[in-house]
Amino acid sequence: MTDEIEFRSDNAAGVAPEILAAVADANRGSALAYGADAWTERMTAMVAEVFEHPGVTVHPVSTGTAANALALAAMCPSWGSILCHETAHILNSECGATSMFSGGGVMRGLPGHGSKLTVAAVEQAFAATRWGDPHHSQPKVLSFTSPTDQGEVYQPEELAAIAAVARQRGLRIHLDGARLANAIAATGCSPADYTWRAGVEVFSLGATKNGALSTDAIVCFDPSLAEELTYRTKRAGHVASKMRFQSVQIETYLRDGLWLRLAGQANAAMHRLAVGLVGLGVSIETVPAANMVFVATGDAVADRLEVAGLRFYRTGPGVIRLVTSFETSDAAVDDALARIAAALG
Amino acid sequence: MTDEIEFRSDNAAGVAPEILAAVADANRGSALAYGADAWTERMTAMVAEVFEHPGVTVHPVSTGTAANALALAAMCPSWGSILCHETAHILNSECGATSMFSGGGVMRGLPGHGSKLTVAAVEQAFAATRWGDPHHSQPKVLSFTSPTDQGEVYQPEELAAIAAVARQRGLRIHLDGARLANAIAATGCSPADYTWRAGVEVFSLGATKNGALSTDAIVCFDPSLAEELTYRTKRAGHVASKMRFQSVQIETYLRDGLWLRLAGQANAAMHRLAVGLVGLGVSIETVPAANMVFVATGDAVADRLEVAGLRFYRTGPGVIRLVTSFETSDAAVDDALARIAAALG
Amino acid sequence: MTDEIEFRSDNAAGVAPEILAAVADANRGSALAYGADAWTERMTAMVAEVFEHPGVTVHPVSTGTAANALALAAMCPSWGSILCHETAHILNSECGATSMFSGGGVMRGLPGHGSKLTVAAVEQAFAATRWGDPHHSQPKVLSFTSPTDQGEVYQPEELAAIAAVARQRGLRIHLDGARLANAIAATGCSPADYTWRAGVEVFSLGATKNGALSTDAIVCFDPSLAEELTYRTKRAGHVASKMRFQSVQIETYLRDGLWLRLAGQANAAMHRLAVGLVGLGVSIETVPAANMVFVATGDAVADRLEVAGLRFYRTGPGVIRLVTSFETSDAAVDDALARIAAALG
Amino acid sequence: MTDEIEFRSDNAAGVAPEILAAVADANRGSALAYGADAWTERMTAMVAEVFEHPGVTVHPVSTGTAANALALAAMCPSWGSILCHETAHILNSECGATSMFSGGGVMRGLPGHGSKLTVAAVEQAFAATRWGDPHHSQPKVLSFTSPTDQGEVYQPEELAAIAAVARQRGLRIHLDGARLANAIAATGCSPADYTWRAGVEVFSLGATKNGALSTDAIVCFDPSLAEELTYRTKRAGHVASKMRFQSVQIETYLRDGLWLRLAGQANAAMHRLAVGLVGLGVSIETVPAANMVFVATGDAVADRLEVAGLRFYRTGPGVIRLVTSFETSDAAVDDALARIAAALG
Repeated sequence: MTDEIEFRSDNAAGVAPEILAAVADANRGSALAYGADAWTERMTAMVAEVFEHPGVTVHPVSTGTAANALALAAMCPSWGSILCHETAHILNSECGATSMFSGGGVMRGLPGHGSKLTVAAVEQAFAATRWGDPHHSQPKVLSFTSPTDQGEVYQPEELAAIAAVARQRGLRIHLDGARLANAIAATGCSPADYTWRAGVEVFSLGATKNGALSTDAIVCFDPSLAEELTYRTKRAGHVASKMRFQSVQIETYLRDGLWLRLAGQANAAMHRLAVGLVGLGVSIETVPAANMVFVATGDAVADRLEVAGLRFYRTGPGVIRLVTSFETSDAAVDDALARIAAALG
Repeated sequence: MTDEIEFRSDNAAGVAPEILAAVADANRGSALAYGADAWTERMTAMVAEVFEHPGVTVHPVSTGTAANALALAAMCPSWGSILCHETAHILNSECGATSMFSGGGVMRGLPGHGSKLTVAAVEQAFAATRWGDPHHSQPKVLSFTSPTDQGEVYQPEELAAIAAVARQRGLRIHLDGARLANAIAATGCSPADYTWRAGVEVFSLGATKNGALSTDAIVCFDPSLAEELTYRTKRAGHVASKMRFQSVQIETYLRDGLWLRLAGQANAAMHRLAVGLVGLGVSIETVPAANMVFVATGDAVADRLEVAGLRFYRTGPGVIRLVTSFETSDAAVDDALARIAAALG
Repeated sequence: MTDEIEFRSDNAAGVAPEILAAVADANRGSALAYGADAWTERMTAMVAEVFEHPGVTVHPVSTGTAANALALAAMCPSWGSILCHETAHILNSECGATSMFSGGGVMRGLPGHGSKLTVAAVEQAFAATRWGDPHHSQPKVLSFTSPTDQGEVYQPEELAAIAAVARQRGLRIHLDGARLANAIAATGCSPADYTWRAGVEVFSLGATKNGALSTDAIVCFDPSLAEELTYRTKRAGHVASKMRFQSVQIETYLRDGLWLRLAGQANAAMHRLAVGLVGLGVSIETVPAANMVFVATGDAVADRLEVAGLRFYRTGPGVIRLVTSFETSDAAVDDALARIAAALG
Repeated sequence: MTDEIEFRSDNAAGVAPEILAAVADANRGSALAYGADAWTERMTAMVAEVFEHPGVTVHPVSTGTAANALALAAMCPSWGSILCHETAHILNSECGATSMFSGGGVMRGLPGHGSKLTVAAVEQAFAATRWGDPHHSQPKVLSFTSPTDQGEVYQPEELAAIAAVARQRGLRIHLDGARLANAIAATGCSPADYTWRAGVEVFSLGATKNGALSTDAIVCFDPSLAEELTYRTKRAGHVASKMRFQSVQIETYLRDGLWLRLAGQANAAMHRLAVGLVGLGVSIETVPAANMVFVATGDAVADRLEVAGLRFYRTGPGVIRLVTSFETSDAAVDDALARIAAALG
């Protein structure tokens, strides 16, 4: 029987061996609950070092939805609105989590270019806003997603330019970094350049999709939000008693560039896959920078690919989505390409 | 230097080796995210078997606060009230989580006997309620905590008698089982007798305090709540993408009685400690059934105990709280008793 | 100096003399608070008679925003979504009221034809919905606005056809009737045909824009929502202690067709105005059925009209909105047309 | 047949003739909606003058529950708690409105002396608070009610002393002034002394119970809350389009001391009633300062009083509550005393 090859989601991957080992290693002796432990202290220092920002606060939470929604709720008054691209995960795939946690905050999806916001799109939204009119939810936060849910990656200059426009109108800047490592690995810029130096005040540090076991985190550069995040994460049930087991994952993830190596492998696997697809004459718009590609195979080919053991999602008529992870080997990519060639042939 | 002995909290303990091994073992191959995996299927079957209830639904969440607050929010209309004992954890130690998730539900702490509700206290609350008057939040849920935050354990007959009174007035019944294994181990009754046979419709299955790594769970016997729980957990950011690593913890926890063995060890350590304390002439009201005791040592003795390396919390003037866990060995208890004897001497 | 002529909003009008007299007349003797009075009983009977629905419940509230948002919050679970046209008042002009009252419910604006929903638009939205996927807010309510905020009026057959599609998917049906009287006067159908016989389960009975002093109301045909509405209106601060003074307004408004006479006058004034505009060669797409028209005058003409004493809002570059009310006399319309002719000349 | 005499509630009274006349008088011409009208401007100036505070903002809302809950929601972060006396109306009689509007804020009822808070009670609550511990809702607002729901009145010195203690811990100060005029009339102090000079930052200006038709108001001395109140009242559906008809009520209410004359009449009627009761040998603890008294008549006497045409509420076994209003005449009091004498005899 044919082995199956996993392209459904990086969520389907397992845990990186280094992280699993670190969790096991943290299981020694007792440790004070709720983050008052040495692992959490070291983790925070590691985030501060990697992001070159001494005053950072870090709140480990168990999912990316929690990381996004709790951060946005702290950044946005309940009567404000949050602007994002109309394809944003926070808008389409979190079941209204941000509206719930923010006490009824309103989310507004904007058009842009592809799946990315643009300066023009944000300026147009601002021009259409009735500022100061209480009939209208007032824009208070701009949220980026990078890579986007379509696999596109903002360059740091793009983030900075859009953020600057938003900050002029007093908006706070958020980044959904569920796959942040993939974006940073793709752009090659520094973590600081991709976040606070570009104007981002709070971001979700995704780790689960890229090799962690059970944690993502809210990272906050704005000390005025720290108290609020402390209480909001607690009352959301997102402050784990045995936080050391989350903190050690994040510390290990960031130490010695593990996160970028893991993401780099996922990106490289996607690059290999995409180049191979182009070589097979399959039409994709651009070779993706990160770890996701959408391919218009047609339904008949997609059916044959499923029979051939490829695992993927269909995202529209005749369109399939392929996602690589840190576990996707070159051999698996080559095997997949061979099966695709056969399905096409 | 003196080794420290941990009595602050069962939250400070580590992970049971069986559970850690099972997590590592689950890290093989890919698995569909968000619970559509074989581990989650097996885990649900295990809960159904252990609790003798085929139609049960289980929602793994990352903390006990999430388990309680999300369950209560699903059980209670936003304009309802939730009755519990005035010492309940959901009332005093979750930063209003239930009020937040329920959309402003009101929590009412009742007196009782010690830290437990009684039939009389609930009847008195009902008599004082202005039923049907929209000025008043209408009682919709009764929530037990067992063991209580004071270490007391309800007998299943107590749960059943109080639940029956509440159900006559149409209330749903919830059990905060953050330390449920300790209660069941203490009473020796069956899990089914302690939950649905006593009238409990939804309970929090605590696991973290008793050896799990990163999971508790909502267990629901009422199919009419299943849809609501699915969406509420999701939008609270409590549906982990890599759920298999939570599910395997719960399955392992329940398999072959591991949960009761771990809790039994914590309870036995507390029993040994309490008997020892009585032998030393220290006044405690009763030998505790579960794994927690409050001792009026006086502040001077407490100071000496800290110097002697005991770790514990002070919960009032001259009063300390000692908590044992599955990791508390007989040797540690005996060592602690020797240090206490010295501090008293 | 030139008298000003009011076309900004029907909100700017005053109170119909019949209603003001009724309020004064209700100020005799004492009356039990919070709706337990004879006026409220008579008002409910009047609504039941006019809408031919004996079991109706009526909740007077002080604004249309409250009427819409509280009704929708009762109709939609917190994790659901509410579908409406992308120009709907509930989406654009209530500052997220429905998201707030519903505990984070999500509102989705759909395209349609002009400012009205269509069967096709709703079917397309349903086709794009991931039913049963907890990542996505599940559609639970469809809300109409008639007349729309662009002045268009649904025919009862349109309401019924769209509602039927939505009810097949289990959605509840809501109607924002802030100007319901204008719609019913325009279509000439019966109140029952325009509401429950078309599938509407709850609607906002607007009265303030059409001659009332201080009240709108939620009207509910679905007894399963009655309890929830009772508590939700109360805790929103929308149950007036001296409710008799709201109830008497609604009773008077509906008695002997006053509401339709007042709305008919507003509609007739708009018809006279629109026909006059067409006669002046001003381009309007269609003669409006209700009491609102948008005219592309160009900014220069708009400037002259302001100088000439017309009061109106500018709703876009070169576009003005004119709204008539029950107070707009034929003389005022003719006067306005003369000024418009002069401004155009 | 015996005429009935109304003592159930000041809510059961009608509208003061001056206020009804002013409403009718405001019904001339059109006025811009949502408060951008001359009546609202004059009303705000009147509040500023009467309370000697130029920068005050005033938000007319339709009920006292709205005034309290929206103000408290603006004053308290969602994760904070609000301290009040355990008999407070906001805690017991508003169906959790404040918890809802605040996004799950927690209300804590404190003991005190009679129905009033004391410095000692607040200090005790602070001593029991685990400040800075995210498990515990942090006290953020202290709310007074004066007169209390038991009819007691704080002296301005009492308010100031308690407020000072609370402000030292960073709490904001709120006053539920549903019957504020009765308190000010009873104490004889200035409105400024009873509010901001005593430390109150936001209060509910009750008017409905004391002669208004359809309005209470939030009065705010803290400009940092103004924006938040603007949006919160709007999205709660508490910004009336025809606000002029509310504003003119408040302006008239405060002009030339009408509010204090009306309240003075209610207080005087209560004083006459209470002195008469004492003269009849009925035991009441003290002659009440405001317009409410609780009398232990015994159930048999209460039954006879009902037969004799007195209208009142029973608030406990053998206890009745009598409330006077601005409409309670001396003749009605004397008549009531005669009937009571007969019932006792």
